[in-house]
Amino acid sequence: MLIIKVGGGEGIYYETVCSDLARLYHQGRSCLLVHGGSHETNILSEKLGHPPRFVTTVSGYESRYTDRKTIEIFEMAYCGKINKMIVEILQSHDVPAIGLSGLDGRLLLATRKPTLTIVENGKKKVLRDDYTGKIESVNTDLIHLLDQAGYVVTVCPPAISREHQAVNVDGDRAAARIAEAVKADDLVILSNVPGLLEKIDDPTTLIKDITLTNIDQYFEYAKGRMKRKLLAAKEALLGGVTRVTLGDARIDSPITHALSGNGTVITRRDDSSRD
Amino acid sequence: MLIIKVGGGEGIYYETVCSDLARLYHQGRSCLLVHGGSHETNILSEKLGHPPRFVTTVSGYESRYTDRKTIEIFEMAYCGKINKMIVEILQSHDVPAIGLSGLDGRLLLATRKPTLTIVENGKKKVLRDDYTGKIESVNTDLIHLLDQAGYVVTVCPPAISREHQAVNVDGDRAAARIAEAVKADDLVILSNVPGLLEKIDDPTTLIKDITLTNIDQYFEYAKGRMKRKLLAAKEALLGGVTRVTLGDARIDSPITHALSGNGTVITRRDDSSRD
Repeated sequence: MLIIKVGGGEGIYYETVCSDLARLYHQGRSCLLVHGGSHETNILSEKLGHPPRFVTTVSGYESRYTDRKTIEIFEMAYCGKINKMIVEILQSHDVPAIGLSGLDGRLLLATRKPTLTIVENGKKKVLRDDYTGKIESVNTDLIHLLDQAGYVVTVCPPAISREHQAVNVDGDRAAARIAEAVKADDLVILSNVPGLLEKIDDPTTLIKDITLTNIDQYFEYAKGRMKRKLLAAKEALLGGVTRVTLGDARIDSPITHALSGNGTVITRRDDSSRD
Repeated sequence: MLIIKVGGGEGIYYETVCSDLARLYHQGRSCLLVHGGSHETNILSEKLGHPPRFVTTVSGYESRYTDRKTIEIFEMAYCGKINKMIVEILQSHDVPAIGLSGLDGRLLLATRKPTLTIVENGKKKVLRDDYTGKIESVNTDLIHLLDQAGYVVTVCPPAISREHQAVNVDGDRAAARIAEAVKADDLVILSNVPGLLEKIDDPTTLIKDITLTNIDQYFEYAKGRMKRKLLAAKEALLGGVTRVTLGDARIDSPITHALSGNGTVITRRDDSSRD
């Protein structure tokens, strides 16, 4: 099974991702799509008078502050608008897509972080009304049930906590956990950049190959959301996935391009060291 | 299989419906829940600056004018907010709910009406940018696949057209079509009224029993949304469903109450005429 994650940032055209996925599906490839919705969530939050707030955790990751009201807005944008739009586009390419959130059938079970420690103006602060979590397990039975019946599962956060609450989880890391759980060979993470860049504004500085043995030294180049993508890639590889590709969602045939080695290709070890 | 429809009007508390469904599920009853979201869609439409507009069709039914922008708002309210909230509540009662729209796996396939003829200020008018439709078929394979695996399918509009567009379909009639397709004995339609009333403001005028042979004479009492519920009941019975109950969603154990004969009970023929 091929796991594809498409980001929810500005400038993402789902049409090209979906038509490429459709071609692969009709060639007989089993696919599962994970998608984001951060940009739409930001727009909707502003319109509904509950502007997005981003915090920086003590470990240096940017995170959406997610109170209960934000979860509702998040669900409207992710599960309502984007998920159903993608399902509609896939259907138009004769792909029998089924859109699910992590809540549905407890597809993504997470542990809610009881508190979130952030750094604000140089000071540590503890948030207690934040609904974010870390995925603990994936309902692979449900994925296989639908996949074997020929459906293409199209997944988005939120996940569900053990206390049955919707919790915000990172989409890239969700895709990594799914890839690990279904023992996928390939995970393709598409976003609105060509991959990991040494200089964030210069596409010619694309880092083409990374291995699990040297991945840690590349975190210094990963800014903003890319930091979590690199972390997701590392987690996927540690979990047994053979190859993770950080590719560009904005080009034609973005999945095929990424699978052909375009983007930042991250493998467990160097090709040269293979038997 | 028991099909339950819960409305999306004001004053609906999903908690009581869900806990009642959970009890039936844990007793071994196979259930499928269909829900609405009209009230939330109205609120969201207002907030997003695209106020709801209701039109009256030439056949006298009230219908939401659904342009493409309304479909997006509709999906956010129905598939995002309400569907995921219900799934979360059901999960909290240990019911493995899966929320799906009619788009997912082409669960509800509809024919889009190319034009909608309405009556406005006494004049006929033709709308061409309206995305509403009539359900043609139900993907019972998908329903049985999930039901047999122990999941409780939780469905809401929109449906999908043959041209792969999301189309607004009436939730009550969707529930009727599903009940017919899965050969359900019972369809329970819950809303924020006690059933069909002879006088709309007087709950003591509840009409308790209707049969398919005399249902047409009761349409005169059905005002607003109740008219379509009665039509849905008629369609379900014509389609082979044994009993349709129009019950009150606002009481404790609303499903059990309805199944015990509280509300307006509509059957194919008089008990007295049974063999």
